[in-house]
Amino acid sequence: MTLTVAFQGIPGAYSEKAAHQFFQKHLLKCRPFPDFNSVYRAVEQGKVNFGILPIENSLTGSIHQNYDLLLSRKVKILGEVKLKISHCLLAGKNTKLSEIREIFSHPQALAQCERFIRGLAKAKPLPYFDTAGSARFVAASGRSEFAAIASAEAGRQYGLKTLRSNIADNVLNYTRFIIVAKPTKATASGSNAKPMKTSIVFALKSIPGALHKALSIFAFRDIDLLKIESRPIPGNPWQYIFYLDYQSPRPPETNERVLADLEEISVFTKVLGSYPIA
Amino acid sequence: MTLTVAFQGIPGAYSEKAAHQFFQKHLLKCRPFPDFNSVYRAVEQGKVNFGILPIENSLTGSIHQNYDLLLSRKVKILGEVKLKISHCLLAGKNTKLSEIREIFSHPQALAQCERFIRGLAKAKPLPYFDTAGSARFVAASGRSEFAAIASAEAGRQYGLKTLRSNIADNVLNYTRFIIVAKPTKATASGSNAKPMKTSIVFALKSIPGALHKALSIFAFRDIDLLKIESRPIPGNPWQYIFYLDYQSPRPPETNERVLADLEEISVFTKVLGSYPIA
Repeated sequence: MTLTVAFQGIPGAYSEKAAHQFFQKHLLKCRPFPDFNSVYRAVEQGKVNFGILPIENSLTGSIHQNYDLLLSRKVKILGEVKLKISHCLLAGKNTKLSEIREIFSHPQALAQCERFIRGLAKAKPLPYFDTAGSARFVAASGRSEFAAIASAEAGRQYGLKTLRSNIADNVLNYTRFIIVAKPTKATASGSNAKPMKTSIVFALKSIPGALHKALSIFAFRDIDLLKIESRPIPGNPWQYIFYLDYQSPRPPETNERVLADLEEISVFTKVLGSYPIA
Repeated sequence: MTLTVAFQGIPGAYSEKAAHQFFQKHLLKCRPFPDFNSVYRAVEQGKVNFGILPIENSLTGSIHQNYDLLLSRKVKILGEVKLKISHCLLAGKNTKLSEIREIFSHPQALAQCERFIRGLAKAKPLPYFDTAGSARFVAASGRSEFAAIASAEAGRQYGLKTLRSNIADNVLNYTRFIIVAKPTKATASGSNAKPMKTSIVFALKSIPGALHKALSIFAFRDIDLLKIESRPIPGNPWQYIFYLDYQSPRPPETNERVLADLEEISVFTKVLGSYPIA
């Protein structure tokens, strides 16, 4: 059986590489979609078995669009994978480093390689929709003064050569991806020996002490909070909802009580999934 | 005396409009800088009296680069201003709506007008470095199939006409700006009758209950938390620092005790400023 995984971008994208790291590559067929929203929709409509989505980068922080979509879309998180991001400078077969005048990539990749780009006196950064797309664009242009910043895989995919590897200013550059699927009645097995995390989103009354109260549900059980993220509520300026990842307590019944406690005091709670920590 | 304010962008930028809303326009000279970092540097080096920086949008959330720069730069927050963002579709004097094929703007402005752009069947969005810059680019191009999304002020600045006003999908679109200056010995007056907020950034030990403990400093004094934001620590993947805005308690001595309590249990605390709530 072949599993299908939806990802945003085009072949050679970091998301595709992350899918290959999470699943067994020979069992897998990756299907490209133009935006994050289409990935969620393909999963909801059963066109693919899974979706893979970047949720956080260790240098630049959360990918907020995917947090916002998790709130409204009918999917569950099944797992996560952490991918080391190694940006490469890619160019046509005959291009020399000194010839390069314009470097295309996603604005975040350009920002992550700011010092490197500044070191190339004659080259200026230009934004592109995504990293692999910038590689395809540079290859199609045939221009020897163009270069792209993307993965080595994207370079191979579009027939560009790697002029420089690992060009990011900070090498501790990881992106965490989540794997989502249609929700099923089955819940994650409690007998799983691997440490698990639970991802939730909740809203609180806007009163002093509300967040402190909510966090006491976790604190008095010594539950480790792995990440907390606030996001604006569209239509309610300066009001926020909270996304929280925490290490799932054992046994699973304890986690059910945690969630029941939170539902008791919150305005709204949604469980996004319980899954093994990468 | 004329006050000088540094802002990121070019004349017609929303930041410039926010500066005019905060200061008395006739006392003010706005000076454009190419990036946020240069704004902070101009303030630190005394080349300008103030800097104005976008920190948060009510639809898309925080402008994280400015949070990260607040941590490392030697400036204090003196005030804040909330500006209503009214995106306009701008084009050359003779352009008709049906002619438009390419709409340039900052990716965030394009995202905020997604539905509007989709309604124009033949036009596609293209990213540009900033909103006012896209207006200048479209004006300079002289191409009648180009349009930009920016403020009405940017349209006037570069001689474009406003084809449509208020084109954002959600009209409750506000950006909050902070005003920064060089730190001085003087502290904000406690006799000020206006409600004040304090902005801080802190790091905690990575142990269960750490954030709950830190928030109890505010909860037991019934202090209202206005915003909490976590940001990754570069070089320490999956570790976070917290930015917190809270309503400053009275009298000022109570706020000093709050900060002393936090310093006692945190790994690191920096006060970014105390200033009147907009």
